[in-house]
Amino acid sequence: MARRRLVYEGKAKILYEGPEPDTLIQYFKDEATAFNAQKKATIEGKGVLNNRLSEHFMTGLNAVGVPTHFIRRLNMREQLIRLVEMIPLEVVVRNYAAGSLSKRLGIPEGQQLPRPIIEFYYKDDALGDPLVSEEHVIAFNWASQQDIDDMIALALRVNDFLSGMFLGVGIRLVDFKIEIGRVYDGDFQRLIVADEISPDSCRLWDVETGRKLDKDVFRQDLGNLSDAYTEVAKRLGVLPKTNGRAHSGPKLVN
Amino acid sequence: MARRRLVYEGKAKILYEGPEPDTLIQYFKDEATAFNAQKKATIEGKGVLNNRLSEHFMTGLNAVGVPTHFIRRLNMREQLIRLVEMIPLEVVVRNYAAGSLSKRLGIPEGQQLPRPIIEFYYKDDALGDPLVSEEHVIAFNWASQQDIDDMIALALRVNDFLSGMFLGVGIRLVDFKIEIGRVYDGDFQRLIVADEISPDSCRLWDVETGRKLDKDVFRQDLGNLSDAYTEVAKRLGVLPKTNGRAHSGPKLVN
Repeated sequence: MARRRLVYEGKAKILYEGPEPDTLIQYFKDEATAFNAQKKATIEGKGVLNNRLSEHFMTGLNAVGVPTHFIRRLNMREQLIRLVEMIPLEVVVRNYAAGSLSKRLGIPEGQQLPRPIIEFYYKDDALGDPLVSEEHVIAFNWASQQDIDDMIALALRVNDFLSGMFLGVGIRLVDFKIEIGRVYDGDFQRLIVADEISPDSCRLWDVETGRKLDKDVFRQDLGNLSDAYTEVAKRLGVLPKTNGRAHSGPKLVN
Repeated sequence: MARRRLVYEGKAKILYEGPEPDTLIQYFKDEATAFNAQKKATIEGKGVLNNRLSEHFMTGLNAVGVPTHFIRRLNMREQLIRLVEMIPLEVVVRNYAAGSLSKRLGIPEGQQLPRPIIEFYYKDDALGDPLVSEEHVIAFNWASQQDIDDMIALALRVNDFLSGMFLGVGIRLVDFKIEIGRVYDGDFQRLIVADEISPDSCRLWDVETGRKLDKDVFRQDLGNLSDAYTEVAKRLGVLPKTNGRAHSGPKLVN
């Protein structure tokens, strides 16, 4: 395994060449970063949890016919995924105001939005992933109008599915980010959900208490991030629902 | 005149109740502000120049069938305009990269854009007039999809007209901002160009030398702002084309 070719290393994941054509291995690291990597830490077990959670969400999406890059989990920290041509955008869906939307537009955190709002951010660390409009996306050829329509349709389906799944376990899906890639089938191309879906890329608030169960726990120093992600995993049945941290489920660190 | 009712005072203009129903008097001040009013100065004669220049552009637009709020100039600093219901957006058209576009998206200043790009900014001084996408505009009910389509069509016509007019006198229209208002005709509503069009709201570069002839002269301390605006006015025939500043044209300060 040590000799396999590294394709890309990001802040929270590493991609290696896969065992079959048009596949990659996605490795989940324990590194947590926020504010464009100005804040960093290692959260023991985060990679293991996110590998499991991303598998859980993507498998569910595949099952309802929302195409994703996920093929199968390989081990505690790795999953086999389809190789895609990434679109250089973060697609954000917001159901409630929070984070940069609240700050930029002066809308109180937690206020329900009139309808789900979709935003595009240009993926460029040096520029701080700036918000862009469809106008920029098309003019600079990051994606076509058809791609945008397809991305919006995909993002809204992911929102429906995830909102339902989380609400079922008493969690409000405040907002989330997905990344989308292109796959080719002969002359056809199709957009599919890529990257990851995890509490790193969602805002998740307990419906009853408002407790934050996502990366804001790290951003805002609200407590133990691993505890929050473990809580999400347990509620979703991804980890056994024992009390406390001394559960008998899978070992979290490998 | 001192007793007429003040309707609104902004950074560069004052609006008074007009002499006829559904009219206002727009008074142009000499105040220049930049960076959300963090930088301020009084530029003697700027108001007089902008009153004349806005008249010039809006009259021209009216003549080619692009509706504007302009009715007639009243005196050196005032013009009669139609009362409109302002849409709380700045509509920006960009032909070349400059300013915040260059900064946010990392595109070199002066690079020609693949096509004119239209941006919307939410008018809110406290928030620093943030960039918004059509998604925000519609979700927060600042304007409808039909309004957006109409605003884009208006903005592109203004761009065509102004680009032509400026190019005719050796000036490149790099970008500009307009504001748009709603007027009602019985059951119908229509969008028209409102506010002002002047070197305060455009980026204007000399085609040959690249010399800046707009508010960036003030923002970036590049010289005398009044000289730059006077140059624009002279080239356009709004002021007589004499040499130097001791021209025999209209007195600039009243």
